[in-house]
Amino acid sequence: MRITIIGSGNVATHLGAAFKNAGHHIVQVYSRDIQNASILAYHIRAEAINELAEINPDTDLFIISVKDDAIGGLAKELGKYGKLIAHTSGATSLDELSQFTTKAGVFYPLQTFSKTKEVNFNTVPLCIEGTDEQTTRLLEELALSISQNVYRVDSEKRKILHLAAVFACNFPNYLYYAAGSILDKHGLDFNMLRPLILETAEKMMDHLPQNVQTGPAVRNDEKTMAGHMKLLGNSADLQQVYALLSQLIIKMDK
Amino acid sequence: MRITIIGSGNVATHLGAAFKNAGHHIVQVYSRDIQNASILAYHIRAEAINELAEINPDTDLFIISVKDDAIGGLAKELGKYGKLIAHTSGATSLDELSQFTTKAGVFYPLQTFSKTKEVNFNTVPLCIEGTDEQTTRLLEELALSISQNVYRVDSEKRKILHLAAVFACNFPNYLYYAAGSILDKHGLDFNMLRPLILETAEKMMDHLPQNVQTGPAVRNDEKTMAGHMKLLGNSADLQQVYALLSQLIIKMDK
Repeated sequence: MRITIIGSGNVATHLGAAFKNAGHHIVQVYSRDIQNASILAYHIRAEAINELAEINPDTDLFIISVKDDAIGGLAKELGKYGKLIAHTSGATSLDELSQFTTKAGVFYPLQTFSKTKEVNFNTVPLCIEGTDEQTTRLLEELALSISQNVYRVDSEKRKILHLAAVFACNFPNYLYYAAGSILDKHGLDFNMLRPLILETAEKMMDHLPQNVQTGPAVRNDEKTMAGHMKLLGNSADLQQVYALLSQLIIKMDK
Repeated sequence: MRITIIGSGNVATHLGAAFKNAGHHIVQVYSRDIQNASILAYHIRAEAINELAEINPDTDLFIISVKDDAIGGLAKELGKYGKLIAHTSGATSLDELSQFTTKAGVFYPLQTFSKTKEVNFNTVPLCIEGTDEQTTRLLEELALSISQNVYRVDSEKRKILHLAAVFACNFPNYLYYAAGSILDKHGLDFNMLRPLILETAEKMMDHLPQNVQTGPAVRNDEKTMAGHMKLLGNSADLQQVYALLSQLIIKMDK
């Protein structure tokens, strides 16, 4: 497929590379910042542009991978070319595109991306939606060219997945940060926690969390929890986190 | 070394197996429940006992791996043999043992263990403490026979590590559960989140969490956060978690 990438952030970068590696032709990379567009365009052999007037209409797909509140405005501009337009957002409805074009879709990778870390796209769940069966199937085929985990997910369910992803990814990452800040204050190295962080996640690959919950809260070990609250005495924020999550672990369905 | 294992829970089970694999001789496994003692003893070719009167004093080390509040009582009973006694608890001081024996230590694996999941002990951080240099060195050597990550950590710092581990392991596991329960309510499969959970943790192996925080809160994307709070409308608990952690992510040091 001939693909035009709108955006140059984390998702655009990784998706662009995955498409290129799968043999697709990346026509252009658009970003408001020409430097960002150029970096990505260089890696995936595409033309970099920073003006929508420079869009080459000779493409099969515009894939919009920008901040949620910028999607609509870009779709409005791109709609006039009559080509398939897809966005990659978990939280944005298909409607946001389909009001501007008859052929619209969603290509949402349920994964976290950082520019400095390579991702094996082969296992990334790709959530696909389209305005009609033909569009959906086209995006599905594109998805299958880069990943084995392709799902059809409508806008409502995609929002649920996006919400769950905040709990499964963004919040744990914050807790890693909190753990690191506790160690920092006492001159201990974050490195000591790394095997534990990895094992906790690896356990999820073939277990359900309710079956492997460990720690003082699930044992209702009040003495240890009280000791921890005391150690957190200089951080009202972390005390709040500790108290809330411990209380919810105590009452979780095991 | 000749090692007697007091306890038959997750830590006792994995530690016993690691010692056995490293060529140590496990003399006995004690548990109040003879069936639990027998299962572990069978796997590591030891004698199972459920009465302290049956303790064989012909051993080099009693390693106590039981609930925190049972450690003192067992140490009191075992002290009379004049052998080295160590516990494996993150939250318990060395004093809890050293009041009953002159040779005491701590052998705290900073890892989460479940009976049904094998652990590669080689990377497990082992935190060692002893009443004197000779004892510390002995436990250190024992630790090095099963892991490359051996640290000397005093009781105060060990408590800090244990607290940080709650944030790095127990709380993320609860959040995985919360994510799964959100999916469940909408007929979506936990399996879809597994690659995301793993990638989030794998990112920690060579990044710091403050450098790779993603999600609506770190972007201060109020519209998405408001949408998520609304989707959580039927769970006041998860709304509380969402609001608190989002607020802390917004103000974290990036």
